[in-house]
Amino acid sequence: MTNRKGQITDKTRIAAVIGGGVIGGGWAARFLLNGWKVHIFDSDSDAAPKIIDVLQNARASLPLLADTALPEEGQLVFCDTLEQAASGAHWIQESVPERLLIKKKVFAALQNAADRNAIIASSTSGFTPTQLREGASHPDQIIVAHPYNPVYLLPVVELVGGADNPYIKRAATLLAALGMKPVILRAEIDAHIGDRLLEAVWREALWLVRDGIATTQDIDQIITHGFGLRWAQMGLFETYRMAGGEAGMRHFLAQFGPALAWPWTKLMDVPDLDDALIDKIVSQSDKQSGHLSIQQLEQIRDRNLVGFLQVLKYHHWAAGQALKDWDDQRPYKAGNFAAQAPFCQHTARVLPSWIDYNGHMTEFRYLQVMSEASDILLATVGLDEAYVETGHSVYTVETHIRHLAEATLGEQIIISTQIISADEKRVHLWHACVTDKGKEVATGEQMWLHVDMKAGCTTPFKPPLKENIAALAVAHAHLPLPVGAGRSIGGR
Amino acid sequence: MTNRKGQITDKTRIAAVIGGGVIGGGWAARFLLNGWKVHIFDSDSDAAPKIIDVLQNARASLPLLADTALPEEGQLVFCDTLEQAASGAHWIQESVPERLLIKKKVFAALQNAADRNAIIASSTSGFTPTQLREGASHPDQIIVAHPYNPVYLLPVVELVGGADNPYIKRAATLLAALGMKPVILRAEIDAHIGDRLLEAVWREALWLVRDGIATTQDIDQIITHGFGLRWAQMGLFETYRMAGGEAGMRHFLAQFGPALAWPWTKLMDVPDLDDALIDKIVSQSDKQSGHLSIQQLEQIRDRNLVGFLQVLKYHHWAAGQALKDWDDQRPYKAGNFAAQAPFCQHTARVLPSWIDYNGHMTEFRYLQVMSEASDILLATVGLDEAYVETGHSVYTVETHIRHLAEATLGEQIIISTQIISADEKRVHLWHACVTDKGKEVATGEQMWLHVDMKAGCTTPFKPPLKENIAALAVAHAHLPLPVGAGRSIGGR
Repeated sequence: MTNRKGQITDKTRIAAVIGGGVIGGGWAARFLLNGWKVHIFDSDSDAAPKIIDVLQNARASLPLLADTALPEEGQLVFCDTLEQAASGAHWIQESVPERLLIKKKVFAALQNAADRNAIIASSTSGFTPTQLREGASHPDQIIVAHPYNPVYLLPVVELVGGADNPYIKRAATLLAALGMKPVILRAEIDAHIGDRLLEAVWREALWLVRDGIATTQDIDQIITHGFGLRWAQMGLFETYRMAGGEAGMRHFLAQFGPALAWPWTKLMDVPDLDDALIDKIVSQSDKQSGHLSIQQLEQIRDRNLVGFLQVLKYHHWAAGQALKDWDDQRPYKAGNFAAQAPFCQHTARVLPSWIDYNGHMTEFRYLQVMSEASDILLATVGLDEAYVETGHSVYTVETHIRHLAEATLGEQIIISTQIISADEKRVHLWHACVTDKGKEVATGEQMWLHVDMKAGCTTPFKPPLKENIAALAVAHAHLPLPVGAGRSIGGR
Repeated sequence: MTNRKGQITDKTRIAAVIGGGVIGGGWAARFLLNGWKVHIFDSDSDAAPKIIDVLQNARASLPLLADTALPEEGQLVFCDTLEQAASGAHWIQESVPERLLIKKKVFAALQNAADRNAIIASSTSGFTPTQLREGASHPDQIIVAHPYNPVYLLPVVELVGGADNPYIKRAATLLAALGMKPVILRAEIDAHIGDRLLEAVWREALWLVRDGIATTQDIDQIITHGFGLRWAQMGLFETYRMAGGEAGMRHFLAQFGPALAWPWTKLMDVPDLDDALIDKIVSQSDKQSGHLSIQQLEQIRDRNLVGFLQVLKYHHWAAGQALKDWDDQRPYKAGNFAAQAPFCQHTARVLPSWIDYNGHMTEFRYLQVMSEASDILLATVGLDEAYVETGHSVYTVETHIRHLAEATLGEQIIISTQIISADEKRVHLWHACVTDKGKEVATGEQMWLHVDMKAGCTTPFKPPLKENIAALAVAHAHLPLPVGAGRSIGGR
């Protein structure tokens, strides 16, 4: 069983995204999938398709990182003017091109149009707040919130603009509620922190390619098969602390420190990015990755990121902790139970990764969406974390799936659940999966047992499951027995 | 149940590890767990406990990355002299302290004692082969094989010493057979590649800490919640290629290139690692990580690395591909598939993302691994892309799953499949899911139909499925009917 339905929606909150593109689109996705209404303004009228693409990728990945269901997706509004977009917004995110004059113009217009309490944040990777605020009517309102691509999956945001600035403090709280990890810089500096580190690596890598020491692929393999795997979970300092052994960081510094004086890196110089070097990099990169489109690379990247983040979340470590904290913002609140007959609270959209080589939704995804429907039903009758912590839970012991038709990419599946019978510790139930066009694609008959997990045996339901399941069974008693129930494989 | 115990044992092969410590110990673990006999020599008689510690960590993690069983662990021999260690060795790995004179003395002694065909490899992170070979009797025999810590999990090894050198070529083959990823440098350079990149980041990070822009923890969080997650799966160049969008690498370079000329990084200078800076780093690091011992940090690191590598292996991507290739060195050797009764070609490891809130593998993942086993069986009998392109395929129409016990994180599940009956267009089959400890966790009874996908109706199997499924059914005819087959939900 998988997710739990959340109750918190943020429909009243508005985020304005100024400047589309990959970064603006990523921000829009973060806010929309967290239930915010999003106003988008881009002076380029062709911006919409890119934003829609980013949103598609985000919908296919971010929800996989939530253990409690996300709120209903917010409304996306394309605005004709910057002023329309800013109107009523609580958060305004500027992601226009990296030209200081353009950005300052945008900020001037935003400060005129926006609420004084709105946070006006820049995605700039290079400029400092001091540069951005020059001549501003209310300097503190303008801050830097620099994310990393893909914005809808990577949690980190560099917040710059004064650790004591109330806008920064509110921004940090708000970003955490989007599943992000704000890191507040203690002082401003050109290009903040992450891009300075990346820039250092980039320069050195260019030298290595230029001098024929390695190809782009060699360098990438050394990163991905080596320290990249380290850095997805522990940074530079924590890794080196370990290298010092139990003697700790001071021992490491004593050992490694002298290396700094050695004439290793070429970092003192900037390589000349002339046509010859550009051609070399482009042809090596084509050889390395040219067999995959950018869209394919993005999907591979997101699939891997989701996998890594799930690993980290499972262990409550590094980026996984931010996701745990995010879940805690959407607690399951039991008690809104209504004896709906049949019980129908879950719909699912067929995702690209669900399609098999026959071109249809693959078989185990049917069980996945039924399992999600089960979890919502169980959460509704009171199976929350506190209940599981008492050592009791509900296990599926048997499932009989019948495939009646094919669901295809993008179709929406509505799952409705009928209690066929229930006693003090068992539930016999039926899931029907029907597309939004009314096509019945699959049914699932299941037997659940209520178990004492420690003792490893069945035991009667405890309150509130006891009363709520009984009430649901009564409410479903008048429903006809589903056609196909009680059959064995091959049976008629 | 088929035992996939590996066929390749390397008991006759000897690796000599000169110099213990974390790196020497990591090498010893790689060889031992791949079935090699290992001779260890360290002039420090206290080296053994550290090596045993590293071995413990390796035993708890590396086998989790193999889908076919590792060979029996090799024999570990502590030697009294370097000459004893070198005697009979096929691979000699030097990991003594980074002092050129010491290393050269060791190499002179090794070349006297070792076989002329033995590969003598240095773990040096700084010296070039030219430096190491100075005055050597057989220069080509000495190469650099620079690994990354933990050597028993991170696949990458930088091989330096001439791409055409036969010792390098043999070394690359041999390292791949240990599950590692050799990257051969095209020319030598001080500190090779990875450490040059790390050094660049380190210098910049020291400035950021020194100037009070960020603490060690801030920097580590920006890495682990941002580009570290990217770099565990795609390197610098592949990531930037994506940033260029479908317009590709040239577009990215045109956009980003100018940034190189900006006076961002402080890399031109080396920060003075004076007492004040050392104290600052040490106290920040203690605050960040001091609540965990180095041993705890190592275990957390390894657990996360195993999780990441399992994700990548599942997707055949980046470091996961090296692990797939490693498995292929220990193939399961099926005879005639038809003779295999039951059919057993698939195992799956329970990943973190498969665990539900009850702490066990979630229900739909059982159907997923059964479905994967089905696909392997169908591919084996001839259902390939060409077959599907003729408009024919096999659809599952019914599945009955019984959950018998719980599978937990990291357990390996072996799926074996029995054809209960088959006719010209139907297969009635049975999957049994058993852990590597012999615990039966689930069964799945299924009915498959052969369909004409265009017409949307069933149709007789075409060659080669027709003959192969019939042959498999004959081979399975003598197997007893599985206990539980033919039941309906709740039936006995």
